[in-house]
Parts: sequence; C-alpha cells; structure tokens
Amino acid sequence: MINQKILITYEFTSISPQDAETLAKEIALEQTVELPYNLIKSHFIETEIIGSIASITALSKDRYSAVIAYNPEITGFQIPQFLNILYGNISIKTNIRIVKLSLPEQFLDKFKGAKFGINGIREKTAVWGRPLLCTALKPMGASPQEFAKIAKEFALGGGDLLKDDHGLIDHSFSSFHERVLRCQEAVTNAALTTGRETLYFPNILAPFEQMEEQIAFAAKQGVKGILLSPFLIGLDMVRYLSGKYNLIIMLHPSLAGTHFNDLRHGIAPEILLGTIFRLIGGDISIFPNHGGRFNLSIEQCKAISLSLSKESLGGLKQALPCPAGGMGIENIRDMSSLYREDVIFLIGGSLYGYSDNLTINTQTFMEEIKRHFPHCSKSVDRTDDFISSCEINNNVYTKDSIMEYLQFNDDFTWSGRGITEYKQSDNPDFYNIKRQELIGRFGEKTAFDLRYFEIAPNGFSSLERHVHEHVIICICGDGKLKIDDISMELRPFDIAYVQPLKRHQLRNEGSIPFGFFCIVDSKRDMPITP
Amino acid sequence: MINQKILITYEFTSISPQDAETLAKEIALEQTVELPYNLIKSHFIETEIIGSIASITALSKDRYSAVIAYNPEITGFQIPQFLNILYGNISIKTNIRIVKLSLPEQFLDKFKGAKFGINGIREKTAVWGRPLLCTALKPMGASPQEFAKIAKEFALGGGDLLKDDHGLIDHSFSSFHERVLRCQEAVTNAALTTGRETLYFPNILAPFEQMEEQIAFAAKQGVKGILLSPFLIGLDMVRYLSGKYNLIIMLHPSLAGTHFNDLRHGIAPEILLGTIFRLIGGDISIFPNHGGRFNLSIEQCKAISLSLSKESLGGLKQALPCPAGGMGIENIRDMSSLYREDVIFLIGGSLYGYSDNLTINTQTFMEEIKRHFPHCSKSVDRTDDFISSCEINNNVYTKDSIMEYLQFNDDFTWSGRGITEYKQSDNPDFYNIKRQELIGRFGEKTAFDLRYFEIAPNGFSSLERHVHEHVIICICGDGKLKIDDISMELRPFDIAYVQPLKRHQLRNEGSIPFGFFCIVDSKRDMPITP
Repeated sequence: MINQKILITYEFTSISPQDAETLAKEIALEQTVELPYNLIKSHFIETEIIGSIASITALSKDRYSAVIAYNPEITGFQIPQFLNILYGNISIKTNIRIVKLSLPEQFLDKFKGAKFGINGIREKTAVWGRPLLCTALKPMGASPQEFAKIAKEFALGGGDLLKDDHGLIDHSFSSFHERVLRCQEAVTNAALTTGRETLYFPNILAPFEQMEEQIAFAAKQGVKGILLSPFLIGLDMVRYLSGKYNLIIMLHPSLAGTHFNDLRHGIAPEILLGTIFRLIGGDISIFPNHGGRFNLSIEQCKAISLSLSKESLGGLKQALPCPAGGMGIENIRDMSSLYREDVIFLIGGSLYGYSDNLTINTQTFMEEIKRHFPHCSKSVDRTDDFISSCEINNNVYTKDSIMEYLQFNDDFTWSGRGITEYKQSDNPDFYNIKRQELIGRFGEKTAFDLRYFEIAPNGFSSLERHVHEHVIICICGDGKLKIDDISMELRPFDIAYVQPLKRHQLRNEGSIPFGFFCIVDSKRDMPITP
Repeated sequence: MINQKILITYEFTSISPQDAETLAKEIALEQTVELPYNLIKSHFIETEIIGSIASITALSKDRYSAVIAYNPEITGFQIPQFLNILYGNISIKTNIRIVKLSLPEQFLDKFKGAKFGINGIREKTAVWGRPLLCTALKPMGASPQEFAKIAKEFALGGGDLLKDDHGLIDHSFSSFHERVLRCQEAVTNAALTTGRETLYFPNILAPFEQMEEQIAFAAKQGVKGILLSPFLIGLDMVRYLSGKYNLIIMLHPSLAGTHFNDLRHGIAPEILLGTIFRLIGGDISIFPNHGGRFNLSIEQCKAISLSLSKESLGGLKQALPCPAGGMGIENIRDMSSLYREDVIFLIGGSLYGYSDNLTINTQTFMEEIKRHFPHCSKSVDRTDDFISSCEINNNVYTKDSIMEYLQFNDDFTWSGRGITEYKQSDNPDFYNIKRQELIGRFGEKTAFDLRYFEIAPNGFSSLERHVHEHVIICICGDGKLKIDDISMELRPFDIAYVQPLKRHQLRNEGSIPFGFFCIVDSKRDMPITP
C-alpha cells in the first residue's frame, strides 16, 4: 500500500522507556489539537487529525526514536502550517529532534519545487561533469564599483557563479541597484573575452515592500538567479518568489543554525537545508562545510548533499548542494571526493586572499577543480526560456544524417535536409521564418553549424543578442539587418558579421522571400532578449 | 553622549580567556564583512562596518560575556537584515548566546511597533486594572459551528479575548471564512446579553497569496485583532501586516523555541519574544508559562513580561505579555502575583475541562482573576479609529463644570455649555452637526450623558451601531431616523429608542435645523461602522 501519511521520526534523548511512549503521545496531541486526549470527543478528530504513533524503537538505554504519522490534510498543503505541524510548539520543548521526514506523493504533488534544478543550472552555466566554482561579493561597505571590479576579475578567471554576500542589501552607503547594474554588466562584458557568461546572483534581502521591485530590477538587467535567505524573509516567501520568477533560486542558511546545531533537539540539517529547501523551490542550498568555520560533521554534510542532489522527492527537481565557509584550494581534492561532481564550491576569503590577482586565483582554483574531473565536458548547447527564431528546436534533427552532398533545389531547399517551419504565429518574438539545418547537427565534427533561413515578406527574426557571432550570407531576395542602431540592406551574396552581444534582427520588407545562410559556432550560448 | 550603536551582549560558555577574545573578534567580522581582518583594506569598512568590541567580561572560569557595538546603518533599518546581523551566521556556531540587546533611538525611530499597545487593548476591551482572560478555539478538526458554540459560551461567561488555536487554518474540513464569520457573529450577539464584546482574533496562517484576503475578510466581519506566528510567516511579514491593518496583533512563538531553549546558545527569550516582537508590531506576545507543558523558568517568564510591558523602547508602545501552556485555575493566584495586572492569561484545556459548562467555567475563572484585583475598574469610554459624529472629542470638556441650572437660549444653546462644531467637512462619515454636552461629562455621577445635537439642513450623522442604546428626543425642526431598513420621521418631542447593535443614522432633509436630545449610558462602547 502506498503511504498516504506524513511520517516524522523523532529522536528522544535522556528519557526512560515509559516516558518515551508518553512523550510520543504528547507530541501527537501537541502538534495537532493541543488538548488533552480526554477532551476529544469526535471520532473524526481522533482518527484524522491527531497524529498516530507508528512505532517506538529503543536506540540505547535512554535514547528512543518514535515515528508519528500525520494526515497531510492538516497541513493544508501550505508551508507555514507544514512548519507548524512539523516543529511549531515542540520547538519550545527540549531533547526532541526530527531525524527523518517522509512526505507522501499526495503532499509533494502540491508543490512545484525548483524550476531549474541540477540540469537546469548546468544548462544555464554550460558546465557538465564537474563541480561549479562560486564566490561571494564581499565585503559589506565596498562600493558598487569595487564589487563590479571583483565580478569582472572573477568572470575573466572563468568562475562559474558569483553571488552577493548575504549581508549586502540596499545600503545607504552602497546601492543595491547600482551594484546589480554594474556587476551584471561586468559579467556580460567579461563573456566577450571568455565566450561564456559567469552567472551573477544578487542578494534579495529587503523589507517585503521592496523585495519584488528589486527582483524585477535584477531580472531586467539579465541576471539568471537570486540569493534568498529563507529564515530571514520567511520560507513561504521563498516558495512564492520561486514560483513567480523565472530565476535560479540559491538559498542561504542564515539564522537556520539554531534549528540543527544542538544534536539532541531541532531538525536534522539534511531535512531543513535539504528536503525543505527543495520543497520551497531552492535550486541551490548553501550549507557550512565540515572542517571550516562552522561545526557540521562530514556525515551531516554528506547527508545534506544526498538529500539535495540524489534523494527522490516526488516529482521535484534535484538541487545542487553548495558547501561553504572557510574552505581553501587545499580542500578541493577532499571535497571533490566527498561530493563528486554535482556540487557548487562556494569559496570566498581564501580565493580573494590566494594572491593579489583575483583572475589568476580564479583560474588556479578552476584548474584545481578540473584536475579532479579530467573528463568533464563543456557544452553550450543550452535551452532557455526566451524563444529565439534561430535556435528553436535546435536539437531535433535525428532523422537526417551526415551527407556529403546537399543538392540545392530551385525552391531554396536542399535535398536530404528537412525544413523547420514556424507556424507559431502567436509568438510575438518572430514571424514567418523557415529554417533548414544544413551542416553541423547531423554528426559532423565541425566547430560550426550552417543553416539556411528564409524570411517571408513582412517576416522578421527575433531581436536578440548573444556572445557567439553570426556570419550571414544573403542568397535570395533582399532584407534588412539591424545591428544596434544601424540598419543595413542585404542583397544576394552580401555578407554580414554580427559581433558578440550586439543586438540584431533581420527583416524582410520586400515582396519576395529573403533567404540567407547563417554560420555560427556549434558550441554557443543561448540568445537573450536585449 | 547618547549611544548611537546597536549593542549586543553575547555570552560564551566552555571557553578560555584567550579564546573569548578571539571569538569576539570573529563574531565582529562574521556578522558583517565575512572576511578575515587582513583582507580589509578600507578605513571606512574598518571603522563603520565591522563590529567593534566594547568590552569582554569574565563571568566565571570558562564563561565570558562580550559586548559588540554595530553601526545601525548596516542593518538598513530593515528587519531581515537586522536579524541577519543579530544572529544570522553565528546561529550555525555553538555556545554563543545573545543575552542583551540595546537599540539606539536612531534605529528605533525607523519602526512603528504596536499600533495599540497595552492602553489601546484596554480601551478596546474596556478592561482596566486586572489581567485579561483569553482562551483558544480548539481543537483542529472541529466545525465552524462547533467553534462558534465555544465562542458564544466563552463570551457569555464574560471572557475578554478569544483566539483561534494557531493551528487552525483554512482547512479542507473546516473553512476559515465560515469560522471567522460565525465566531465573530457569536461574540457580537453575546455582547447583546453581556453589554461588552469579547474580542475574537482569528489565526492568519496561510500561503502569502491568501493572507491579505483572509485579513480583509476578517476585518470586514468586525474583528479587532488577529493572531500571527512570526517564525512561520516571517518576521518582516508581521511588521508589514501590523503597519498596514488597523488590528491588534497577537503573536505566537511557534517554531521560535529552538532559538532560546538551549541556555548556552541562541537568543534570550525576552529579546526574541519581547524586544523583537515589539519591534515588528506585536501588541500581545504569547509565551510558554513556567511550570506548564514547556520549560521556561520563572525568571525567564518575568524577563519576557518586563521586556514587553515595562521596558522603554524608544517611542514604541508597550505590549501585553500572554503566558500560556498548561495553566489552570489553581495557577491564577501565583500568576497574578508574578505578572501583576498587565498580562493576558491564555488558558485553553483546563478552562474547557473544568466542568461541562464553558460559560460557567469562564465566569469562575474570571471571578478568580477579579478576586486578586478587587479594585479593578471597568470603563467603556473608549476611543476608536472610526470617527463617530456622536462621540468625537468626547473627553475634551474640562473648562465647564457641574452646574445645576443650564439656561436655554433661544438659539438652542444652553448657557454654561459650549458647542462643539464639526467643521471637518472632509470627513465623509457625517456632515453639518453641532453637539453640546449638557450633563454627565462635568463631574456628575449620573450613569448617563445628556447631549444636544443639531443637524443643519442636508446634514447627517454617522451610520453606525453599538451595544449601548440611544434615547432621542426631537426638540426642533424635523428629521429622519433610520434604524436598519426602517425610516421614521421625528418632529418636536417625538422620542426614539435605538436598540443595541441596530444600524442607525439621523438626517435632516428639511430647511431648518433639526435639533434633538440624545441620552446614552455614560459607560458605553464605541460605535463601529455597520
């Protein structure tokens, strides 16, 4: 039979066998009806509301574990009440620790969890098969310009992720908006050199009234993720923001520690920073690494990591563990062996302090990571939410295969290569375009793809920009190419080159089809809206 | 010199003298810049951002206390970041407890705190000089009808406050809206019998998207307060809601316990449930009473109570302590002596279980409370936010005094009594009314007040209702009195009686002033909008 209940395993310390049973009964009442049993007169409440004791097990002479089953309906499938049932009143007692939590499908189905998860983050960062390197912008008190300098140097060194320190807010002495603007600009510009964008996650820590304005501002600058502290802004607020915005959600454990660092009381960290952080929509969960400035054991770190990246949790996506706190280059070997590839190493002070040159430090740390994952591949065939006319369905060519000769037909098709016709007239980004993938997608080893596009009269391509370049050769009709504010006419055999990150769009304002070849790197970043 | 810093006193246990100093320095960095000292190269950051150690004191051989001063600017004067600076990262360490918190005026000035505070609650409940009795609607799983029955019985017994259990939400098996509707109706109806309304506070515990709808619904039913759990919905959300709605805010400590029940770590409960709950706008703070189902000591309870109801905190209002959890009638004597009059006794199970008759139980508990406060007075001369044309400025007559003879003047004034003329034409509730207080407000001992009102042509009084009755005697012009849906003409010497809680309004649709006497109880409740 499928379990329909929420099963919570509590561990009691310093307790006698009789008291263990009494305590289990008390918890089952305390967390639900908050009344003595003799005052309950309803069969429905007895059977459906009060927790039922599934088992009590002796762990040692004075340590017991008890499993209590709760009807998920009592949580309303809502985060605040779920936290209440889980640990609300018994947080005020002592020597009761939650060591295991099993959530039924019926409950999990009501939550969306992470939007991106491990695979989504790998797609966004184009990093596969190895840990990611992340650093934090510090210290509080630095100016937006100083933060942007750090962002630039880290990005030029090839760092994967960059986040605000969780104490950076919209300070009177250092503005949130200017920091986000300049840092996002810094990582975008660095991508011109590196060919790959370091993702920057600003910290959203603000009074409720300002939070969404800050997120909207950050998203407008092109950030792909944000840092949130659930215990500072509320866990349900994280669920809300995660569901509303199309951003990677990185979670910080600030103020959560008291819930797990007393081993006889509280909630095991793999439940709090693992299961629950996944439930509220976390893509990444930061936690204190063993052996650093904090006190978690190696077993606890491993349990958190597993709970995030391996354990199945209904249909919820897996999240990336992000150990942090006092780690240096000398720890990378052990951490790589402990966490394997699905992890983000968040390294602050020791990366900054390794030498005076942050770019070189970053390169050095990245090399050290890659050294332990020699077979890691780097792919930039990513998908994104913005639908680009050039990139749509760019992985669907499986029927065709490598061909040495593609015969040109009079109707501007090539034999052996199908046409992708875009009939999505409801997509406002582009209109009336056909695409044919010609070379590069059928097993070829070329470093580029050759495609043919045809824009019907009045059609247009997406207005977009990206790090990779375009080479365009007009072969029929005539069209307009707009690059930033400059517009140029393309007639047959005119060739155009679109530089990295330039806004561009192709239009057909004539009366016959405008057809052109477009050559791009086969490994390339996804376009974004300008 | 006035202190301009936030002063936090930490207590370290199991530590050597050298380590105490090192730890204090680490905290000053950890809670601000999160970088080692040698990486800080800015004078501004050194002096303005990093915490500065004000003192380190030995408490015993291995216990030390350290005071660290922080620039309030680093908190941005925002709750989430304030919590972060206070205890964010060090929550994850061990043996660091915050035992004292001193907030400068510059910081406190940015917060509004409670809207009502002790005096406001006393005005709303009309209880002075004694503790208030509160109970909780239980158990989860009961129907709205069953809850309304409890509400009615408790209100008929004269209980002061009634709150939802903090686990009552909008359940599939028991609706929030129906509960609030029926329970508020129950206490309003009971007021017809008792002459005084028991205040009902519904529990607002819901996903973010539903919370404000629930509050608006409750306010529309006439509730005067709500119950919130800061650690379940987020402390800043409480500040936001408290600031936005004109409701008494009662706070519950669910999930807060792990922050204070390890005596070597966490935050002292008088700071968390006292100072901080006042800062975020709490009018009432529930905490576990010593000797009940939870583990707080008598000293801790006293400290929480003092922090709420006595300590000055800038211009913030004092709040009412609300000890709860496993108390019975036999505890009232000791609790009365411990907390004195400014306290709410929250008694659930033992009130329900005292006998089968909840009304009698409530009366018995109320009598027991009053027995310890024999001189408590009951006054219903309250102020409210709804501006009633009959009650505006009802306490301002200090110049006039008791007079035996009030001579009638031809212009419908009485010598020796001033006129209050309402020129607040921007108030949409009433228009063009004069009032003269004649008897009852000048030192008389009458149980009633006699006032003269005059409504100019086209003028009207507030549409309102209240528990106290009106006797109206028309003496000039003619007017209309609307009671519920019935409208009656009043001509000179017509007398009207307005029953408790009937909606009523007076209008002058004629061409000369409509004047009438109005007699009311001197101790009466404030009108509300219907």
